[in-house]
Amino acid sequence: MRATLMYGPGDVRVEDVPDSTIKQPTDALVRITASCICGSDLHPYHSMDAAHGPARMGHELIGIVEDTGSAVTTLRKGDLVVAPFAISDNTCEFCRENLQTSCTHHEAGFWDGIPDEGGQAEAVRVPLADGTLVKLPVAPDSALMPSLLTLADVLGTGYHAAKMADVKPGNRVTVIGDGAVGLMAVLSAKRLGAEQIILMGRHQTRTALGREFGATDVVAARGEEGISQVRELTGGHGSHVVLEAVGHMPAYEQAIGVVRPGGVVSRVGVPQYEDAPIGFGSLFRHNIRLAGGPAPVRAYIDQLLPDILDGTIEPGKVFDATTDLDGIPAGYKDMDDRTSLKVLIKP
Amino acid sequence: MRATLMYGPGDVRVEDVPDSTIKQPTDALVRITASCICGSDLHPYHSMDAAHGPARMGHELIGIVEDTGSAVTTLRKGDLVVAPFAISDNTCEFCRENLQTSCTHHEAGFWDGIPDEGGQAEAVRVPLADGTLVKLPVAPDSALMPSLLTLADVLGTGYHAAKMADVKPGNRVTVIGDGAVGLMAVLSAKRLGAEQIILMGRHQTRTALGREFGATDVVAARGEEGISQVRELTGGHGSHVVLEAVGHMPAYEQAIGVVRPGGVVSRVGVPQYEDAPIGFGSLFRHNIRLAGGPAPVRAYIDQLLPDILDGTIEPGKVFDATTDLDGIPAGYKDMDDRTSLKVLIKP
Repeated sequence: MRATLMYGPGDVRVEDVPDSTIKQPTDALVRITASCICGSDLHPYHSMDAAHGPARMGHELIGIVEDTGSAVTTLRKGDLVVAPFAISDNTCEFCRENLQTSCTHHEAGFWDGIPDEGGQAEAVRVPLADGTLVKLPVAPDSALMPSLLTLADVLGTGYHAAKMADVKPGNRVTVIGDGAVGLMAVLSAKRLGAEQIILMGRHQTRTALGREFGATDVVAARGEEGISQVRELTGGHGSHVVLEAVGHMPAYEQAIGVVRPGGVVSRVGVPQYEDAPIGFGSLFRHNIRLAGGPAPVRAYIDQLLPDILDGTIEPGKVFDATTDLDGIPAGYKDMDDRTSLKVLIKP
Repeated sequence: MRATLMYGPGDVRVEDVPDSTIKQPTDALVRITASCICGSDLHPYHSMDAAHGPARMGHELIGIVEDTGSAVTTLRKGDLVVAPFAISDNTCEFCRENLQTSCTHHEAGFWDGIPDEGGQAEAVRVPLADGTLVKLPVAPDSALMPSLLTLADVLGTGYHAAKMADVKPGNRVTVIGDGAVGLMAVLSAKRLGAEQIILMGRHQTRTALGREFGATDVVAARGEEGISQVRELTGGHGSHVVLEAVGHMPAYEQAIGVVRPGGVVSRVGVPQYEDAPIGFGSLFRHNIRLAGGPAPVRAYIDQLLPDILDGTIEPGKVFDATTDLDGIPAGYKDMDDRTSLKVLIKP
């Protein structure tokens, strides 16, 4: 079968690899019908250590169950399923608390922890299939497919940012980042009743989509100028909630700059730093809280799926390009160049 | 009048200073009947820049109103009052949200922002008296005085840690630090229904008092050994809530080590660092939240005062020494040597 491998920075190839097969009784084999490239895939695209490659890529997918291990009870051949970006048994103490990204099962974790599998491919072995996969009540050719695919990561991730920040009706919310996750954070803040949603981003096509999703204001400036514009828009004191959907240090610093005393910075952009300011001068003096992490998107699918099915939300609008497997390397480049927002893959 | 001045590290003196007087119509002049030395006073005692001295000391006090400015409406001469460690007008938008430590009034702030005033003295000018001071419904010689004095800082600060962590019945809580604030955090976690309260501290007299306040376990070890003992006591996964009442980096690292996935580290020890680990390997991977800051103790007095008056809680037990003004330099030394837990001052 064919699959995507990253060899090093900027070096993505689609190659023949051994077919994925069932290995554990709890596995499912899924023939992928839709997957995509994630903004977080651009982090290794910039800075991957080639000595650790080649690495299989892709952690968002929809597909059709082709085979199941003997212990799988809830799925069968032919089911259309979505796979979240984290594998979980959905029964451990953390899964029961809806923190599936901290599942304690030894096979649980992120797709990049499974060396010979990935979503940017023809097929994939899904460990802990009963816990991980969620059946979709539509046909594989449904027009809702792009929106349903966002349940695998970006919609749930944006929603997680807003939930961890406890966005409430009347809140002023600032979203940092106009990538797919930032736009999903806008949509989620809107869904939770935010009164003001300021989107910080410079890419006009994206911020226009952000307005469609619910942004009330757009601030294109960055750094001190961006901070001062947000503070002006928020009556001088900043925003109750900041949803940080980038992961780089300047975005964190911007978040600290625009958050209101007593407010919360909720991060879902994977931090590309370890140490950062959290002392008296940044978080402590004004009781700023910090929240966020990898989204337990499995937990949110039940809440968000009905809104997609009935058309209340259309998160699939973040896909502005579609490709087959051969077009994946170009898709990475387009997303890195910001000529594509998010690339849908039809293997 | 006499007051306490810090000239530099280890150099505390009690000297004659100009009498405090009313300066603004919103001021009150308070004759101090009880004050104390705070664990946070030990930070400048270790590392104060002598070029910034001498500095007036003390931010916890009870006293009798001796005079009021013309605009003060809720207090009059003879009232017994407690002064929180932060000055606030109690009417601005943050005060109305019970975040009095972020009061926007230009006279608001901490005592050390008022150059010629301090609580370790015979008297003090209290700015924004109507907002800041709270009347106490007891006589000045009440036996409850030590407990009432904790309303000025340490009780409210420990309580803030627990409230910001949203301690709930059934929670496992770890408190880092066996100083007065740590012990108040234990008492507060107990009051909010924590099931398990692990106190990390090495001073046996203090940890014994911690057990009296509600600690179910004591861990004397620090660093990796302390972390592994806490993890063992919490079924391997760590503690839902960590209340960090020290402020030094090793205490923060210990907090990260013992917190459970999805849990919260709530800091009330004033951070003696600015940058700290908050990336993928520390907070992000398991959705650890960070909370805390200077406690708006003004907001908590109404909740906590009745418990003191009816004897439900006895936070005044943290005072294990009493002195007059002359004994203050020795009191600093005793607290620094850990021979005294907290020194009560009767001017």
